[in-house]
Amino acid sequence: MVGRQTFPVIGQWSDARLDLPARTKAFVSDMVGPGSPWSLQEPAEPSASRFTPGECIELAGGLDQIRTDSATRQNAAWGMSFLDLVRQRAQSIPDAVLVPSHASEVDRIIQWCVKHDVVIVPRGGGTSVVGGLSGPNDDRRWIGLDLSSLNGIDQPDLINDVITVGPGVTGPALEAVLKGVGRVFGHFPQSWERATIGGYAATRSAGQNSTGYGRIEDLVVAANLTTPIGEWHVGHLPATSVGPNLLRYVLGSEGTLGIFTDLTLRIRPRPPVRRAEGAMALNWSAGISALRSLVQNDLAPSVIRLSDEAETRGTWRMSAPSGIAGSLINGYLRARGAAQGCLLVMDWHGSSAMVEARRTEAWRLLRSHGVISLGGAVGRTWVRHRFDGPYLRDQLVRDGYFVETFETSCSWAALETLHTRVGEIVALAAPRSYLMSHISHVYSTGASVYFTIIATGDLVNHWPSLKRDLTNALRTAGGTASHHHGMGIDHAPWLAAEVGSVGLQAIRAVKRAVDPSNIMNPAIIEAAVR
Amino acid sequence: MVGRQTFPVIGQWSDARLDLPARTKAFVSDMVGPGSPWSLQEPAEPSASRFTPGECIELAGGLDQIRTDSATRQNAAWGMSFLDLVRQRAQSIPDAVLVPSHASEVDRIIQWCVKHDVVIVPRGGGTSVVGGLSGPNDDRRWIGLDLSSLNGIDQPDLINDVITVGPGVTGPALEAVLKGVGRVFGHFPQSWERATIGGYAATRSAGQNSTGYGRIEDLVVAANLTTPIGEWHVGHLPATSVGPNLLRYVLGSEGTLGIFTDLTLRIRPRPPVRRAEGAMALNWSAGISALRSLVQNDLAPSVIRLSDEAETRGTWRMSAPSGIAGSLINGYLRARGAAQGCLLVMDWHGSSAMVEARRTEAWRLLRSHGVISLGGAVGRTWVRHRFDGPYLRDQLVRDGYFVETFETSCSWAALETLHTRVGEIVALAAPRSYLMSHISHVYSTGASVYFTIIATGDLVNHWPSLKRDLTNALRTAGGTASHHHGMGIDHAPWLAAEVGSVGLQAIRAVKRAVDPSNIMNPAIIEAAVR
Repeated sequence: MVGRQTFPVIGQWSDARLDLPARTKAFVSDMVGPGSPWSLQEPAEPSASRFTPGECIELAGGLDQIRTDSATRQNAAWGMSFLDLVRQRAQSIPDAVLVPSHASEVDRIIQWCVKHDVVIVPRGGGTSVVGGLSGPNDDRRWIGLDLSSLNGIDQPDLINDVITVGPGVTGPALEAVLKGVGRVFGHFPQSWERATIGGYAATRSAGQNSTGYGRIEDLVVAANLTTPIGEWHVGHLPATSVGPNLLRYVLGSEGTLGIFTDLTLRIRPRPPVRRAEGAMALNWSAGISALRSLVQNDLAPSVIRLSDEAETRGTWRMSAPSGIAGSLINGYLRARGAAQGCLLVMDWHGSSAMVEARRTEAWRLLRSHGVISLGGAVGRTWVRHRFDGPYLRDQLVRDGYFVETFETSCSWAALETLHTRVGEIVALAAPRSYLMSHISHVYSTGASVYFTIIATGDLVNHWPSLKRDLTNALRTAGGTASHHHGMGIDHAPWLAAEVGSVGLQAIRAVKRAVDPSNIMNPAIIEAAVR
Repeated sequence: MVGRQTFPVIGQWSDARLDLPARTKAFVSDMVGPGSPWSLQEPAEPSASRFTPGECIELAGGLDQIRTDSATRQNAAWGMSFLDLVRQRAQSIPDAVLVPSHASEVDRIIQWCVKHDVVIVPRGGGTSVVGGLSGPNDDRRWIGLDLSSLNGIDQPDLINDVITVGPGVTGPALEAVLKGVGRVFGHFPQSWERATIGGYAATRSAGQNSTGYGRIEDLVVAANLTTPIGEWHVGHLPATSVGPNLLRYVLGSEGTLGIFTDLTLRIRPRPPVRRAEGAMALNWSAGISALRSLVQNDLAPSVIRLSDEAETRGTWRMSAPSGIAGSLINGYLRARGAAQGCLLVMDWHGSSAMVEARRTEAWRLLRSHGVISLGGAVGRTWVRHRFDGPYLRDQLVRDGYFVETFETSCSWAALETLHTRVGEIVALAAPRSYLMSHISHVYSTGASVYFTIIATGDLVNHWPSLKRDLTNALRTAGGTASHHHGMGIDHAPWLAAEVGSVGLQAIRAVKRAVDPSNIMNPAIIEAAVR
């Protein structure tokens, strides 16, 4: 707990793909002041692996697939939340990291771990922002099971429009294969460049296109898991009414039941037209009404994203067209009364005729809600920068800022109150902060809300308690602890409230049945029942 | 096992809404011969209720809501499968039928039954065709829990487009309320006139519009269950990533975990345009390709239904326009080479502009697969008669025919082989039969197939073994034991094959945790593990 320190090189994302633009720097500085000193907790000196050389040889099974060096083990215990980035998460690190290269090895490793009471924490791209990579709460030895080498991709099945992939496949690798056969998977979370299909599936991910393409639950149509009690195939193509839906049960199991060894994914024809555009709603409330109207009338585009006033101002200051074009747009908006408006980005995918038909109908509704078109350039700019967030975050952290995100979903009726309440809490707890939010996934019954908080570095010291207060407030206002970041140990304390006592007993019963030794990612379930 | 008998009045459906049209009679007689003598097993003399008067008073809780007369008890043990209709299902009947009129009574009844080791079998509309209303396999006393009086309908929530209803609400009652506020639920199984929302939800139903409106799983967004260990609220509006999807788990639990006391349903604006039309594919294979192409290009109508050649011939002979109009159409089809074709019915719902845009794109694909338009009249005729099937079935049964249906779903790649295989098995096992089938639910990854078998009455004697052979064949060919009729005791023996050993252990673990006394509809789970 000392003063300003040199920030360690983070490099979670590819190194400094972006330099922090001067205008971003200026805006953040204007809003919350200069990057400030903040205490940095030194990571604990990594403890030595508790596996004997003999055990390592057994675990490796003769292959060069086990790592016990400190750097690899330490890295495996961290995700990409702010606390992970600044090494604030107090936790143990794995005694070894295993990198199976064939699905058949997973069963052998699990059985060895059952026999030796060793805990397994699976790892895909390592992009969890909710403590999904945490070791056990007890002093059992544990391994990080790095699935990134289970990255095989089968030939696409173009009759049923499905493809079967290993859990370690990343979005870019998958889309590259599909592009060659005129198909698309269409799951684009902000972690797309690094996250894996297995990780998406285990955490019930949603991506930027989920309004049009569906959440990961809608896209995984079958899967194989290796569990401590055997292989488990889940899912029937295309649908069944025989018994409960176990596929939807294992999606969201976050490694607590078994390891996905392959996943069968719905794919679809590449849309011939992708038409991005920007628009402006008069205010947050009008924008919400417009979104609700679109989706309830089945007219939502594939991507829809409404920024609140704060995020709109931030976006405009940080990335809007500058110079003459920017002035013209600003003047136009002022004249139309939307200078304090809310930015709306839409991306329409489909055939030319269907995109035009949908847009025509949709714009009739949008106009009736006072929405003004900003044209295609704004939309295309968003598409071009859609994965920039994490890089900007890293740069801001390096400059001494606290940057974190949290997200929820709630019914349409609850949305404005929830949004206001979060603003009040943050304003009180972190006066030197800038809070921005947007809606990025809409459903007929409600929407997600994603919040970004930028503050001076000292917020790091009370972020865990603020996050707890915020999550309680989200729940009280009708939101969920997480719409698409998953549970991890960060959200697990709210599981009981979300599923109720009966639900929790059901979850624990399945856990005991499928993982009787409690070696599969136990921290998450334990965090839920503490 | 005697000769022809007078058939008992069935009256499962409203009495004889339809007289069997002469042309239907003629067609069936041409195909399988005259209605033939078939053995009718007399129902067992109903045993007396094993509840004492004192127990009945306790169970009733002071309300006139318990029935112990033989007729009511006997009726409660039968669904609407052929075997139920002809009273062939060997089974016990409940010792009492309870009709709670408030959700709060359900918990009291369950707790009484836990205390006295009495089994509960819930009942909605009583339309199960898979033995979903069967009592326990042991000699415990049991009650039929008739939920038809839990039929309250809340005010529709027009902000979130949801409505909360009791489990006993029927489709017609719900749609009548929604019509008043310009909304629609849109779930139309053939049992629509009698089945209940709770029944749909418990059995993972799909309706005739499910291609456009979604299966029941897509339409129930939250629910309350009363279980032996407490109240269970499942579902978060609109979505969450915290833990496994328990809502999808309880949909499909078929009364084995608890009783739905209310369900929150997604509703949507009434489509201003509904445009039904008929078409003809050159043959089954070409029709399948056309359907696949539509749905994979996101151009399927709300209702799509492709009959195979046999069903097309049957439909044409039984209900096609007669006289000059019929001759003209027949002549036209012959000229176009589709006289042996497959009937395709589509119904498009939406705004006028969107229906036209979709139809235009869709017809481009349909024409490329050789599909010929038959115009709107054929489609409208189907819509008018969409709920007639069960009435026709009852009349045919009365005339001494065996009529039963079974259904499945499989991937597009498996569909033709599966269909052929079923035809071979039926032809061998029941030479005096007529087998017809259609696809009525399409997904990007596959489709459902629904089979109707009409035979002379003697098939009743070996139907159970033929049904077993057919279900095995469906599974071998890549199908499921049921796409939308649920499990019941008829399909439960295939649960283990469908979910695997690990899945079955998970299901049993949840059952034990939530219903430790095993009083909730135990026959279904037991049939699955026998």
